[in-house]
Amino acid sequence: MSVLTPQDKDFPRWYQEVLSKAELAENGPVRGTMVIRPYGFSIWEQIQSRIDKRIKAAGAKSVYFPMLIPESYFRREAEHVDKFSPELAVVTYAGGKKLEEPLVIRPTSETIIGEHMRRWIQSYRDLPLMLNQWANVVRWELRPRVFLRNTEFLWQEGHTAHATQADAADYTATILETVQRDSLTNELAIPVICGIKTAKERFAGAMNSFSCEGMMRDGKALQLATSHEFGQNFAKAFDINFLDTDGKQKYVWTTSWGMSTRMMGGLIMVHGDDNGLVVPPVVAGTQVVVILVSDDTGVKDVANRIKDQLVENDIRVELDDRFDISFGRRSVDLEIKGIPIRVEVGLRDLAEGLVTLVRRDTREKRQLTIEAAALDVLSELTQVQTDLLRNAVARRDELIVDCTSLREAREAARSGWARIAWALVGTGGEDSLAEDGLTVRCLQNMDGSVPADSQDKDLVAVIARAY
Amino acid sequence: MSVLTPQDKDFPRWYQEVLSKAELAENGPVRGTMVIRPYGFSIWEQIQSRIDKRIKAAGAKSVYFPMLIPESYFRREAEHVDKFSPELAVVTYAGGKKLEEPLVIRPTSETIIGEHMRRWIQSYRDLPLMLNQWANVVRWELRPRVFLRNTEFLWQEGHTAHATQADAADYTATILETVQRDSLTNELAIPVICGIKTAKERFAGAMNSFSCEGMMRDGKALQLATSHEFGQNFAKAFDINFLDTDGKQKYVWTTSWGMSTRMMGGLIMVHGDDNGLVVPPVVAGTQVVVILVSDDTGVKDVANRIKDQLVENDIRVELDDRFDISFGRRSVDLEIKGIPIRVEVGLRDLAEGLVTLVRRDTREKRQLTIEAAALDVLSELTQVQTDLLRNAVARRDELIVDCTSLREAREAARSGWARIAWALVGTGGEDSLAEDGLTVRCLQNMDGSVPADSQDKDLVAVIARAY
Repeated sequence: MSVLTPQDKDFPRWYQEVLSKAELAENGPVRGTMVIRPYGFSIWEQIQSRIDKRIKAAGAKSVYFPMLIPESYFRREAEHVDKFSPELAVVTYAGGKKLEEPLVIRPTSETIIGEHMRRWIQSYRDLPLMLNQWANVVRWELRPRVFLRNTEFLWQEGHTAHATQADAADYTATILETVQRDSLTNELAIPVICGIKTAKERFAGAMNSFSCEGMMRDGKALQLATSHEFGQNFAKAFDINFLDTDGKQKYVWTTSWGMSTRMMGGLIMVHGDDNGLVVPPVVAGTQVVVILVSDDTGVKDVANRIKDQLVENDIRVELDDRFDISFGRRSVDLEIKGIPIRVEVGLRDLAEGLVTLVRRDTREKRQLTIEAAALDVLSELTQVQTDLLRNAVARRDELIVDCTSLREAREAARSGWARIAWALVGTGGEDSLAEDGLTVRCLQNMDGSVPADSQDKDLVAVIARAY
Repeated sequence: MSVLTPQDKDFPRWYQEVLSKAELAENGPVRGTMVIRPYGFSIWEQIQSRIDKRIKAAGAKSVYFPMLIPESYFRREAEHVDKFSPELAVVTYAGGKKLEEPLVIRPTSETIIGEHMRRWIQSYRDLPLMLNQWANVVRWELRPRVFLRNTEFLWQEGHTAHATQADAADYTATILETVQRDSLTNELAIPVICGIKTAKERFAGAMNSFSCEGMMRDGKALQLATSHEFGQNFAKAFDINFLDTDGKQKYVWTTSWGMSTRMMGGLIMVHGDDNGLVVPPVVAGTQVVVILVSDDTGVKDVANRIKDQLVENDIRVELDDRFDISFGRRSVDLEIKGIPIRVEVGLRDLAEGLVTLVRRDTREKRQLTIEAAALDVLSELTQVQTDLLRNAVARRDELIVDCTSLREAREAARSGWARIAWALVGTGGEDSLAEDGLTVRCLQNMDGSVPADSQDKDLVAVIARAY
């Protein structure tokens, strides 16, 4: 009855099949672009609205900056242009004419936002300036894959300016913990390892880069969120300075941070199984589907009553009355789509005053009384969310190996992640790992906390294959 | 004390000054692009979220399609390419190479959505297919103006496919009434005249185009929403067909409809006055500001209490405790920003157990008891919303003149709008009006309702200067 290639057999193929059969997304006509379909977008909207609330709670305000950036802006920060040049899409014609200066479609907006920050910031009273935008960005990809590496993707990019280095560092830490780690852990049910990037893996122009890394079911790492301290690099390149309380003119300290539609890929690869997608209830576009087994008045009445009770409790619920499709096919369809809970309403159960609840994650079925059904579904949704996170933690921890030599780490990272003292790896070790397709995902303190600086002592490197 | 150029003296200059001094938006570095600043975006978010709810209530589902469209797609529907060619921005380089086929940045997405609809629609069971996306689009503008005509702007574009012409027409009417007219009237407090476009003003490739037109304070019209029936034009160009219940293969009937950041311009120009912006409470990012007149404990306590009570009632409220700026300057700032209601909390009032409420629209002040303040503010917000709409209706109706000759209409449209039998205008009259910068904004039935077809009898033309 399995309609998907098993994960063990061919994980990348399983991923493509889930995208298609769960009607999440598909390729656009231009290589590397994607179409996010209604069902996929319903999940993205849930993720996005929750992250947006967290960003606002952290004090950043929503803005919108133009997508088209003069090419010259990219040359102001040398490291930035070096890194991004091969990825840029460039507009050379517009309005029927060749443009005098080519325009770059934003791969990220540090440069254009820096230019406007310069005008808005005069004195210490204007700081901190904390901005966020939800936008599309374009980075030309050689090996595109839907949600994971797209030529055009959707994201939020936060950009802030602070009076001191300490303020900038504190804010980056706040974003990492309260926006990134919390939303990934508690909403997407993806446990993440957060740490600082090595110099080699740092973002273009950044002094410090941080990331949250999730482990996919095939043992590979996926970077799910990043944040960067730019020091005064962009402030100097774009002349963003302010009059401080001591009467002196100083450069600001800037940061940026982002989360993208790549999270959709993470959600699929962390929770999905051989029967399809499994969506954590908190971010499910549809949390519960009430399936009418047959087209009978009694069935309709009870199904509608349970649906209404769930709606009253703010549950995102739908009725499935597609009687022109067999019950079996409908169930498989809802399984592939990863709907967290199905409630089956059929005549046989009804005769005993019961309906049947099916959990997508465990595929367990149990009978509920009609009266208690809505309340039981509510508590089961909470339980599913908890179980998904706990199981993801268990799977991840099983595949993380503490290593004492680079050879051992290399071996462990073939099927999982290796933890090893950074001192045993170093820049040389990092280069040699790269030859085997392995990267240092991030550096952590011994206790798993996030270091403030990649030069700190006694750091531990997390090594893995990565998407 | 006036910090703005009066509207009577120079309306366009007043508009530019409001954009800047209310910190709504500014020009981006590329001509015609705009930066939407935090305060402006806070209003846009309110507008957007309400329209999004209405669109979902009308049954359309959110999706995302790529921004980059192969140039060849535009050539499939002849009228579409003819109209859009001079407005297109074209990517010719990407990933460090010249592209084999140039890519167009979407000016609108009929073509790319048509291509994917073709794959998703097989039979009558797949219809109607109702999609909506929030996206940025690019149309090269010769005479750009922030919010009104931007090279890049934000909008929603709805795209639907139906089994019959009647279904398509019904859905277009539903969108016009329940999404467009209702949100403009009841949320933005902008009364609109809705009707069908003449053949000359129709959207590229459309059979019928409809619009909602608002009257600005200078008597000009602004098109605030549009919807289009494409008949089977796009279905034939993109081969979107389905197996109908009668066993026959048929082309679908498509529609599209959109509302954009242009609404921000309408909101400014309908409600704004010589003291600045006036934001209708329903869409205000900040509905109430509680101003602390001085830095005293008693003042702080009462201000916080009132603020908390308003927050409990889901009011978007902020405290103004910028004591380093004079009370007068803070008041002027909040006036320019159009905050619907200010609550002033000062020692003199407090001694009598009072605070002062100031309405932005009427500039009326009245004293409230501390105890009743929050409730009074709640009902006053409702009153402000009602008054703004009523006043906008009165201003509009005063400037609409019923005319019986083209000469009379031409005269009336110098300062307002002319209503005249369409039979007295005709295509010839329309062309001659164009020479004077006048356009037929839309055609209505005699009773003001929206005609189904521009060939219907006894239609009335609404003639105006327009943005």
